[in-house]
Amino acid sequence: MTTLSEKILGGKEGSFVDRKVDRAFAHDGTGVLALDSFRKMGGVKPENPGKISIIYDHITPANNSTTAELQHELRDFSKSAGVNFYDIGCGICHQVMSEGVCRPGEIVVGADSHTCTLGAFGAFATGVGATDMAAIWETGETWFKVPETIRVNLEGKLTGHTEAKDAALEYIRMLGMDGASYMALEFTGEGAESLPMEGRLTMSNMAIEAGAKAGLFYSDKVTAEYLAHLGIESERQNAENPSYAKEIDIDLGILSPMLAVPHRVDTGVPVEKYAGTALDQVFVGTCTNGRYEDLKRFADIVRGRTVKVRTVVVPASKSVLEKAVSTGILLDIIRAGCAVGTPGCGPCLGMHMGVLGEGEVGLSTANRNFKNRMGVGAEYYLCSPSTAAASALAGEIRSPEEN
Amino acid sequence: MTTLSEKILGGKEGSFVDRKVDRAFAHDGTGVLALDSFRKMGGVKPENPGKISIIYDHITPANNSTTAELQHELRDFSKSAGVNFYDIGCGICHQVMSEGVCRPGEIVVGADSHTCTLGAFGAFATGVGATDMAAIWETGETWFKVPETIRVNLEGKLTGHTEAKDAALEYIRMLGMDGASYMALEFTGEGAESLPMEGRLTMSNMAIEAGAKAGLFYSDKVTAEYLAHLGIESERQNAENPSYAKEIDIDLGILSPMLAVPHRVDTGVPVEKYAGTALDQVFVGTCTNGRYEDLKRFADIVRGRTVKVRTVVVPASKSVLEKAVSTGILLDIIRAGCAVGTPGCGPCLGMHMGVLGEGEVGLSTANRNFKNRMGVGAEYYLCSPSTAAASALAGEIRSPEEN
Repeated sequence: MTTLSEKILGGKEGSFVDRKVDRAFAHDGTGVLALDSFRKMGGVKPENPGKISIIYDHITPANNSTTAELQHELRDFSKSAGVNFYDIGCGICHQVMSEGVCRPGEIVVGADSHTCTLGAFGAFATGVGATDMAAIWETGETWFKVPETIRVNLEGKLTGHTEAKDAALEYIRMLGMDGASYMALEFTGEGAESLPMEGRLTMSNMAIEAGAKAGLFYSDKVTAEYLAHLGIESERQNAENPSYAKEIDIDLGILSPMLAVPHRVDTGVPVEKYAGTALDQVFVGTCTNGRYEDLKRFADIVRGRTVKVRTVVVPASKSVLEKAVSTGILLDIIRAGCAVGTPGCGPCLGMHMGVLGEGEVGLSTANRNFKNRMGVGAEYYLCSPSTAAASALAGEIRSPEEN
Repeated sequence: MTTLSEKILGGKEGSFVDRKVDRAFAHDGTGVLALDSFRKMGGVKPENPGKISIIYDHITPANNSTTAELQHELRDFSKSAGVNFYDIGCGICHQVMSEGVCRPGEIVVGADSHTCTLGAFGAFATGVGATDMAAIWETGETWFKVPETIRVNLEGKLTGHTEAKDAALEYIRMLGMDGASYMALEFTGEGAESLPMEGRLTMSNMAIEAGAKAGLFYSDKVTAEYLAHLGIESERQNAENPSYAKEIDIDLGILSPMLAVPHRVDTGVPVEKYAGTALDQVFVGTCTNGRYEDLKRFADIVRGRTVKVRTVVVPASKSVLEKAVSTGILLDIIRAGCAVGTPGCGPCLGMHMGVLGEGEVGLSTANRNFKNRMGVGAEYYLCSPSTAAASALAGEIRSPEEN
């Protein structure tokens, strides 16, 4: 009778609990704001710096003097406070946390809305505001309202060029942009068990796009093996007859590649419906789809061919880049004509590294296509890395199944 | 009795000549201005689009909607006009032109001050304004005042970790920032002959820092071999008893690693003089020192070690990046902890990819350290890739000879 969120947070749904957090992180954008609040509340040194990470990913390397100045100040603070500091080029905060920091059962807060990504480990991971983060630095704890849970039951297995991203766009479509507001999602079923960690991270990452506080997978053999490779032991989590507020079912076996169309994430449709739409830019990366396996799927399709539209590829982290270089897939990507960016968020936030002009149309593996986000007056479609690859080669939207 | 500039331009020094140009190029910054002028003068289609190149390098990928919009417009024009178009990620204009476009004896104009780089091929290559470029698009020609020539006679050969960049900083020091205003430089002697193409490109690149219109090497066996690798036949140029306005001598054999200190390029001093200066950032790249051989020299020093200061490495072109990936040196650079940027100008112009904050101190392989250029209130030292490597490992300025 206990959901995973109830178990981790140690309270019944609807109740308010104060809890010590296991991990707290911020990036260069929110970190600067958190530092400002921290100082205003008289903070000097965080309560437990070992639990805190500052990860530079949003505007990296710095794009102007003001940004550089703010980063300089936060960098100085990070070093003097003894928190875990990841400078420019280390990667996106959620990805860095997924590479051996976050563990099953933890309570994780990040000053970024996509902190829910880390629910893939069976952690309760959620975004908090920068002021909350400052208080967490000071006290090491914060309050939570234990959320109700929606079960997203995944049946079957993905086939062909259909990916976790397509399943994510499908559940967002089914729930709607605010269909899970202040709730948690639990991804269950044989489909969930069949997903590798990178797919789970993609699924959990997008929970916030349905308004959810968190999106959790139960840690299992797949989780344990992933963490074992990083030298971390972990335990399996078992479902304890949880009581769900709602359940939806998705059959991964019959799913096909999906798009979200401008300017909402919950507009999922099969890619074919917009096939032939001319593109000005394709972007592959982000905390949703910038992992090694994402880049590999992209490379597997573009290898030996040439993209017909400008294409920006940004690995989610230094580790991802390193593996992409050493396995040769980055060379395939470069030779196909793509521009490769410094590990980080890339153009996802519309402030760096590939913003679109007015009237331009982009296709992106990111998680948000809100109006004007990645370029004033631009239109963005969201898709998987395989769809991005097939479309980059065509210069227009195309399903990877037709490639 | 003829200098190389007189021979190529076909006129005596001091005379004014109208000449068809062999190559004309602009980047995303000046190209936008040139297009505006071109349209204002009623231009529709360039006289000879095959001679014209537009190369996106300055703010690439685009950093905001305005930049993206301007790039979109120039991209559309480039495609409809049929000029040679190089989109984001292809690399720095001067580097792209050096990879099989520019040839000995040509008259080359670029809407960028460092167009003198291409004098390394025995071309008369010089920077022009964006309005001049628009007129050149329209007519295919422009006027030149045939410059007087200063001979920079290079004796001996470089030794140890001393590089062409050090020799460049030395001749700029000797001539001063305006010591060659409206003149050409000719690099001669056994030292010049001993320099490989990448070293010649570095030397010619910095001619403008002494105010020179151009900096030329005679094409020779080294030039021919470099171009033959790119499938281009070329002829040797012989000196024809040129009459020089001035001569300076540099013995490459006794030169040591050099720095230019804030905020002038002609302040060259041996690196040791500022050894121990704490650094906030090291930057390796640009049209001066972003070539494969530069990255290799950097990698040879950092391989297997870790940089102590944030370090941004930006390959000068896609070809450079591709070679750095395929030979493994990029992996060495990434593993040493450097952030690698999209091929292009990087932070050199202070508008992208690693700008410094107030009071920060940077070390850069670029060609200019003017006040506020790469960050308002920041200080920049200029050096060679080897000095950048030794200093990145130390976290402070250090000579590669002491590494």
